[in-house]
Amino acid sequence: MTVPDLHAVNESKVDVLVVGAGPAGYMATLWFARMGIKTKFIDKRSTKIFTGQADGLQPRVLEVFETFGFADRAAKEVATGFEATYYEPDENGRIRRIDVKPEGVPGISRFNGSVVHQGRIETWISDAIDEFSKGEIKVERPIIPEVLDINDGVDAEYPVKVVLRKLPNDYAEPNQFGHKVENGLYRQFDGDQNQQNGIDGAHVNDLEIVWAKYVIGCDGAHSWVRKRLDIEHKGETTDFVWGVLDILPITDLPDIRKRVSIHSVEDGSIMLIPREKGLVRLYIQLREVDHEEAVGDNALPNGAKKRVDRSKITADRILQAAQKIFKPYTLEAAETHWFTAYQIGQRVATAFSDPSQRVFIAGDACHTHSPKAGQGMNVSMMDTFNLAWKIAYVVKGLASPSILDTYETERKAVADDLIAFDQRLSRLYSSKPGEISMQEFRSVVEQGSAFTTGCTVNYDASILIDKPADKSREEEYHSPLAPKLNIGMRFPDAKLVMQCDARPWFINQQLLSTGQFRLLVFIGDYAQKPALREQLNGIGQYLARPENTVPEPVLQKLLIHASPQAKVEWDDFPLVFRPRDERGVMNYWLIWADTPSLHAETGHGYETYGISKDVGAAVLLRPDGYVAMVTEPTVEGVKDIYAFLSKFLVGLKPSA
Amino acid sequence: MTVPDLHAVNESKVDVLVVGAGPAGYMATLWFARMGIKTKFIDKRSTKIFTGQADGLQPRVLEVFETFGFADRAAKEVATGFEATYYEPDENGRIRRIDVKPEGVPGISRFNGSVVHQGRIETWISDAIDEFSKGEIKVERPIIPEVLDINDGVDAEYPVKVVLRKLPNDYAEPNQFGHKVENGLYRQFDGDQNQQNGIDGAHVNDLEIVWAKYVIGCDGAHSWVRKRLDIEHKGETTDFVWGVLDILPITDLPDIRKRVSIHSVEDGSIMLIPREKGLVRLYIQLREVDHEEAVGDNALPNGAKKRVDRSKITADRILQAAQKIFKPYTLEAAETHWFTAYQIGQRVATAFSDPSQRVFIAGDACHTHSPKAGQGMNVSMMDTFNLAWKIAYVVKGLASPSILDTYETERKAVADDLIAFDQRLSRLYSSKPGEISMQEFRSVVEQGSAFTTGCTVNYDASILIDKPADKSREEEYHSPLAPKLNIGMRFPDAKLVMQCDARPWFINQQLLSTGQFRLLVFIGDYAQKPALREQLNGIGQYLARPENTVPEPVLQKLLIHASPQAKVEWDDFPLVFRPRDERGVMNYWLIWADTPSLHAETGHGYETYGISKDVGAAVLLRPDGYVAMVTEPTVEGVKDIYAFLSKFLVGLKPSA
Repeated sequence: MTVPDLHAVNESKVDVLVVGAGPAGYMATLWFARMGIKTKFIDKRSTKIFTGQADGLQPRVLEVFETFGFADRAAKEVATGFEATYYEPDENGRIRRIDVKPEGVPGISRFNGSVVHQGRIETWISDAIDEFSKGEIKVERPIIPEVLDINDGVDAEYPVKVVLRKLPNDYAEPNQFGHKVENGLYRQFDGDQNQQNGIDGAHVNDLEIVWAKYVIGCDGAHSWVRKRLDIEHKGETTDFVWGVLDILPITDLPDIRKRVSIHSVEDGSIMLIPREKGLVRLYIQLREVDHEEAVGDNALPNGAKKRVDRSKITADRILQAAQKIFKPYTLEAAETHWFTAYQIGQRVATAFSDPSQRVFIAGDACHTHSPKAGQGMNVSMMDTFNLAWKIAYVVKGLASPSILDTYETERKAVADDLIAFDQRLSRLYSSKPGEISMQEFRSVVEQGSAFTTGCTVNYDASILIDKPADKSREEEYHSPLAPKLNIGMRFPDAKLVMQCDARPWFINQQLLSTGQFRLLVFIGDYAQKPALREQLNGIGQYLARPENTVPEPVLQKLLIHASPQAKVEWDDFPLVFRPRDERGVMNYWLIWADTPSLHAETGHGYETYGISKDVGAAVLLRPDGYVAMVTEPTVEGVKDIYAFLSKFLVGLKPSA
Repeated sequence: MTVPDLHAVNESKVDVLVVGAGPAGYMATLWFARMGIKTKFIDKRSTKIFTGQADGLQPRVLEVFETFGFADRAAKEVATGFEATYYEPDENGRIRRIDVKPEGVPGISRFNGSVVHQGRIETWISDAIDEFSKGEIKVERPIIPEVLDINDGVDAEYPVKVVLRKLPNDYAEPNQFGHKVENGLYRQFDGDQNQQNGIDGAHVNDLEIVWAKYVIGCDGAHSWVRKRLDIEHKGETTDFVWGVLDILPITDLPDIRKRVSIHSVEDGSIMLIPREKGLVRLYIQLREVDHEEAVGDNALPNGAKKRVDRSKITADRILQAAQKIFKPYTLEAAETHWFTAYQIGQRVATAFSDPSQRVFIAGDACHTHSPKAGQGMNVSMMDTFNLAWKIAYVVKGLASPSILDTYETERKAVADDLIAFDQRLSRLYSSKPGEISMQEFRSVVEQGSAFTTGCTVNYDASILIDKPADKSREEEYHSPLAPKLNIGMRFPDAKLVMQCDARPWFINQQLLSTGQFRLLVFIGDYAQKPALREQLNGIGQYLARPENTVPEPVLQKLLIHASPQAKVEWDDFPLVFRPRDERGVMNYWLIWADTPSLHAETGHGYETYGISKDVGAAVLLRPDGYVAMVTEPTVEGVKDIYAFLSKFLVGLKPSA
């Protein structure tokens, strides 16, 4: 092998390098595209995926898709879950439906948990990246990082050096193990990047040096970036083996279009999820699988006792296992679209970045678990939805790097909760009806249903969340001004009326992911309460002072009043909530009314948030829609919010 | 001039030739693409339009867009109207707001009247045509028909001969009259096709002979096809002149984002419509306009006494007229996007087709009027939404040509109603506050608001509508089995539950424009009423008999029950409502429940239609969603529906 001459290699500078074009990488890049960050986005595979892989979309992720403008594409393509049914053996050992429950938590979101294959989701995000970046940012493939050096950068601004290697186009195609049906066996058991062998012998034309301000490793369970950072992936792999099968079913099971959990007496369990286009996905416990000896090169690196012999796993064998569990119902496949098998394990990375916080990991690189709870892709996307706007703020010089601390504290807590839930759920799924209480099983699923919507994530106190440090994430914490608005949780939705045109909207339909913090001034019934009107005018004057100006792309100021329309005059509102641009064209879209509409059921927003129309509240939202702070709707309250913001926003020195 | 040798000209055969790519032409072609009809689609302009033109979308048209799958694109781009305000002079002659009303009719549709420029609408339809026809059907431009001969066809199947002429690419660009701002003056006053001069002198390479089964002339107010058919365009043009202006406004009018009607004392009236992207459209009465002498070549062909001198009309003059009316409010334009002017006139074609019903006209070719009611584009699209599926049925040999009669009877009635409404509205808009009662003005607008939603169109008795021939269209007619389901009107919406997966849907979200007639069997609470269960089984057996089979693409059979879910078993439903394909894969999507959902407010469908859960009803819908017939949910009732269908469906001879 010859060592290539790196002086002859092409060099480039980017704000951020995103390694890995899976859900976490796409979501990171989406934020960067939206916020105008110079991003390089690479993936080791030659093509995007077309079948299989993850498929569950939790309500919270659909809410996030809406803030980027493509929830409607999802709505047209997904299968959405509304009911979950449970099948268990009767006294003769024959399975039958014994319960029906709502899937998810009715009312927690405007969206329900939905299913569609990962490739479609990546397409929607990819199209949005294309639109936001005007075609500037594309996934470059097949490319892998071979060298990563932190603090070996070209200068202090670009401290990370990464050497990338272009692969031949056919290099990273997954081994299909001789199967005609596409499958995920390769990815599942070998991971994506174990053929890596450094830059020795590489042709200089295939190499590229990237100097980056930040790097995010979204490179999967077997993350090369994680290994390069020497971060441990802590946990263990069990001996439970499950198969996954995507088929167009021929069956007489009456609930085939609902979510179905089946526990058979002796043949194992099934979780069935209806998919788009009439497909179903079956998760099938495989009780009879051949194992290889796990020795030498063949050793299972992550601690499982035995290694499944994947050459013995076929779509037919998985289907046969399902047929046994289905009895007395029949099951055949008119079409088989994809299959895989996995050994259940649960692991969390011990750190989510290098100590200097220049290189981060996200998604499967941080946490791996069973797919039962349908969380993998969702939690991965929410990792970078949490991280990327923070990096963008720092890259733009708008915020202090200290905000980056919150990524690991916020997301590791979610990963830990997920692993704990998955361990309980997997054990219950993999056990026989005799070994566990079926009632306990259903109750764990039900208790977990709020968690699995993604809507109950509760971030701890930090520089970005104003609440007492001793409040646990299992506790909902709120200001007495807004008892139903939990600080650290996502802003719940309510249908309000846009003041200028009387259009009813769920307000979150307009609180898009633009990168803006948002100050929501709930001024109550100001038109009939002179004290509130005075507070409103005071706030208007305070915010209008030149020394208090925070640019619109950083802080958007919105007013939500609760006065009857007949008492309200447009000209009464402070100009800061209806500003004009340099040409004199007014922004009409910042003032909302929580009043009845002539067309829709509105006027319950204050109630939703627990805010009094006589007192009001001032609420600060983060760019990712989480409630950062709640104070009173007065100049003093707004000063408190400014004081909070000035701890991390660069150059903000509000007047006293 | 030399006469070209037509023997040397290219020839082709098509099912349908659509002349003119405006709203009517696009909607016709959309149906043909959806139903697999070989269509040639031509337009005389070199390019699609990018600004100006029509902009109003009524709720009914948005419902139709939903049935073709692109209402979501509309939702993202349009400005939607919710409130209408009225400004009139006070005792000092200063205008001020004196009333606020809901725009449209709350609750009549899930959609509200919306606004976006015509070019966007044509793009959505064009994309859908592309998708349905797999890229087969595209607008060909710039092309005009020069010869049209009926019964001079190549054979009896293709009886219409049309000679087309390809124009040079710059030929049909509208004269902009020296203005930098795009405008519609040319189109408004000269029409699109007066430079036509036959095939003499044409090069054979620029000509093409098309043999067509059917032709639709969607070629505008000055329709060449209409003239070629010698159909009179009956009515008159007034001397009222209005300007139209699309601007990004700078103003202090507080209601600038609502629909605004202003009557000033002496300076005329304005109708203001908020548009997408912060724009507004102003319709402004022009009291001071120069007229040309209308003599000789310059004569106004359609009867107005004087012809507006269009060279004197500019965007600035229209804006100045608006500013006078706006006082004491200010109005400036940060951007001017488009303008035009028009003389109000109202005309309806005396026939909508040639006597042999091979060549039809639609849209502006059939009816012209003022744009005040926002109806032009909508009624035009609904014309061909009514016509094209009928032609498709005949072309495919599925239906007798006798159904084509209904196009003129159904749509001329709508055109007549529109003209009557427009005459009243235009007079009230063009009058001074002293001349008319302002209260009368508001009351006419309000009464008209149901009509302008497009949802109240009521088709007369015909081969396609089963109701007494003496029922006027001003009367709602229904069966006692479903008192709220008006026969001849569009099927109203209700939120029901899909039986197989418990998903709540507004049923019209699933009754897509596929070209299918639909038999909806409302079987009531069959699970608790043995008589109804027996009826259901009887219907299932009747429909399953081979001699009663109507192919699924012609008649879709749906079941809507009202039994509690706990009493319902999937296996109980007749197989005709859950059929299997040749592989054994079941169609799960034909059975609905009008029951409460665990997630959404459902279970009021029977109530919405006035159907008793103890009696039920059988309802036949046409492919365009209009209620054709209501009978009882028994074998006898279904036989009645089959007898009705067999009057026009070819080859259907139902068993007795």
